[in-house]
Amino acid sequence: MSNAVFYHAGCPVCLGAEQMLINALDQNKYTLESVHLGTQPNRIDAAEAAGVISVPALVLEDQVFHINFGAALADLKA
Amino acid sequence: MSNAVFYHAGCPVCLGAEQMLINALDQNKYTLESVHLGTQPNRIDAAEAAGVISVPALVLEDQVFHINFGAALADLKA
Repeated sequence: MSNAVFYHAGCPVCLGAEQMLINALDQNKYTLESVHLGTQPNRIDAAEAAGVISVPALVLEDQVFHINFGAALADLKA
Repeated sequence: MSNAVFYHAGCPVCLGAEQMLINALDQNKYTLESVHLGTQPNRIDAAEAAGVISVPALVLEDQVFHINFGAALADLKA
């Protein structure tokens, strides 16, 4: 199993993307962890290190996919 | 089975997103069709009608997910 980390901030755009991933991601291949950076700001550094610029974003192994646009990571750090 | 349509233009960003989807999408739930709008410009109108603004983009049933950014649809119409 590989890890899939979905970073979000609880925004409507984020929730839509999360629902898509829960439905569409092959859960025989990936364990999906959902991280709310608003309520878990201690995870922001790791998200940034992984290349996340905005949320919602999906990190699959070492690749970042920004899915639509909800909020900039910089705004979550303010 | 539901339909998943991936619109792209052959760009490197598009190919990365396509590879991710081929790996990660649950193929027991979705049939993935890949449409290259550069070589199939007759599909641009349908993409636009579905809400696609840029590629790469994934349309799952009636929802559009723009995954990273490769090219604007407007540029493909030029």
